[in-house]
Amino acid sequence: MAATINKQILLLETPKGKLEESHFRLNEGAIPAIEEGQILVRTKLISLDAANRAWMQGATYRSAVEAGTVMAGGSISEVVESKSKGFAKGDLVFADTGWQEYAALPEKVATKVAPMEPLSHLLSVYGIAGLTAYHGLLDVGKPKAGNTVVVSAAAGAVGSIVGQIAKLKGCHVVGIAGGADKCKLLVDELGFDEAIDYKAESVNKALRTKAPKGVDVYFDNVGGDVLEGVLFNMNDYGRIACCGAVSQYDGAAPAHGPRGIPGLIVVKRLTMQGFILYDFDDQREAALTDLQAWVKDGKIKVREDIMDGIENTPKALIGLLAGTNVGKRMIRV
Amino acid sequence: MAATINKQILLLETPKGKLEESHFRLNEGAIPAIEEGQILVRTKLISLDAANRAWMQGATYRSAVEAGTVMAGGSISEVVESKSKGFAKGDLVFADTGWQEYAALPEKVATKVAPMEPLSHLLSVYGIAGLTAYHGLLDVGKPKAGNTVVVSAAAGAVGSIVGQIAKLKGCHVVGIAGGADKCKLLVDELGFDEAIDYKAESVNKALRTKAPKGVDVYFDNVGGDVLEGVLFNMNDYGRIACCGAVSQYDGAAPAHGPRGIPGLIVVKRLTMQGFILYDFDDQREAALTDLQAWVKDGKIKVREDIMDGIENTPKALIGLLAGTNVGKRMIRV
Repeated sequence: MAATINKQILLLETPKGKLEESHFRLNEGAIPAIEEGQILVRTKLISLDAANRAWMQGATYRSAVEAGTVMAGGSISEVVESKSKGFAKGDLVFADTGWQEYAALPEKVATKVAPMEPLSHLLSVYGIAGLTAYHGLLDVGKPKAGNTVVVSAAAGAVGSIVGQIAKLKGCHVVGIAGGADKCKLLVDELGFDEAIDYKAESVNKALRTKAPKGVDVYFDNVGGDVLEGVLFNMNDYGRIACCGAVSQYDGAAPAHGPRGIPGLIVVKRLTMQGFILYDFDDQREAALTDLQAWVKDGKIKVREDIMDGIENTPKALIGLLAGTNVGKRMIRV
Repeated sequence: MAATINKQILLLETPKGKLEESHFRLNEGAIPAIEEGQILVRTKLISLDAANRAWMQGATYRSAVEAGTVMAGGSISEVVESKSKGFAKGDLVFADTGWQEYAALPEKVATKVAPMEPLSHLLSVYGIAGLTAYHGLLDVGKPKAGNTVVVSAAAGAVGSIVGQIAKLKGCHVVGIAGGADKCKLLVDELGFDEAIDYKAESVNKALRTKAPKGVDVYFDNVGGDVLEGVLFNMNDYGRIACCGAVSQYDGAAPAHGPRGIPGLIVVKRLTMQGFILYDFDDQREAALTDLQAWVKDGKIKVREDIMDGIENTPKALIGLLAGTNVGKRMIRV
């Protein structure tokens, strides 16, 4: 191993308001030594996710990221040294390595993955994004053919796949995204039936014409006003799969919740259900088999948004929270 | 039939803010003539429900109550004249007769009920209140023995039965109500484990000591700040049965929804589900069998709050919305 420096991005302080580059610092650390049962990995592709921001706000389904430590984040990495029977040099793994070039990991926190071309698909359609879209839509949202499905952050990593799966299940699909370019992409390239630019029009009003039969399933990535706008258009017995609340991650205190809760939940007999991908771990292989077949048949087009250089990771996350990405954003290290 | 006057309460205007007696007027109408397939009924007991207020705000699961018409409401009534093969003079029925002494009803909107002593139980434990408590708790909330169950408006018609059913299913039960007297009643007379006076203490903080293992099932009758306070105390995979939002009925515009939605729904993988009793019509007999057995065995104590005189119906509803009732409120006509 020629390298002796481990470039890493530290979170300097817990942001109270909007996340800024000044909250981070590039550090040149040492390449860690590993102990028995551990592996040393070199990160290749770091995944950027809205959830990264939520982790800074406090403990969620994982502990909070503490100020002064390496920023947490998942990546595809290559094993460069192993003191574990389960891993050999050259193996590819997915793990929370954090934002750094090298990480020492206990063997149990790394998941071995098979090499593929392009490798980036392991973080997009075959990674957390694709599997979240798959289980959230099919197992939580439970759309039936002919249903109207709405998805927010529709040009993002998860939303772009949700909409395409809903289409191939025979649904009328409406994507909500910010900006005319993204909306055009949804309809022209990804096959959505309709798109709503939430920055330019009222979601509530636009749905009256773009979802004329009402909304049966809403896959919510954003919460806030968009959720409120969709709520008013839900059909009786509609289902809302709560995947995230990106509109509320990058600020100090949580905003007030959407009007219509719980009033509309009651009168329309809606179900709102939160989920996290880990709840579906036992169904992972079946989901991947479906996703691979759909990608191979051209039924799902995979959009990725890859930037280079670990020093750009803070900027990449800040942009993602502002919605500058199209498809799955990642950093090639 | 000696009587010739039909006392009835009209809703004069759709209230924009708080409901007041001036929104109603006592009218002396005519006793209606009936046509083939109809019955004429004399109301005996009128049911007062928070939902009455919600009906004024617009179409829900039923059409809105229009200004200038007899106020809508369910009652137990006696058939005084029948031009229907399904009903005979003297039969007892449950129907939406509205707030009036006499009503002409198409036969299909009346449900025949068996006489019982006391008749009022047909509106409380064996009526909408009891059945709503039963299905909402058991079929939507799905508590398991050992779970912690929280119910709001706990001294009300529905809440008082929800808590008692949860107790007999082996749960730790916390009731939320307004005022020390109601809280004392919940614990001393109805067997709740704990009670929280939401007017005197923070629901969020009180639950930390009164539901020390967190909340598995929340039966929500009120929405608003109480819902928000309980949300922060929900356990992972917790279930919220959304039965009503009485905190939001008696005002002009719906308040903003509770903070934590959808953020906490996601990270805790909560399910919020709205329901209306009519969704469980096919399970009505089984539910009544259970309720009758529990009442007979003394496992459920039935609280009723009966006032006299149709002219007092507006006052009775206004008081109910302010929480002056304990148990099922009704008007003896």
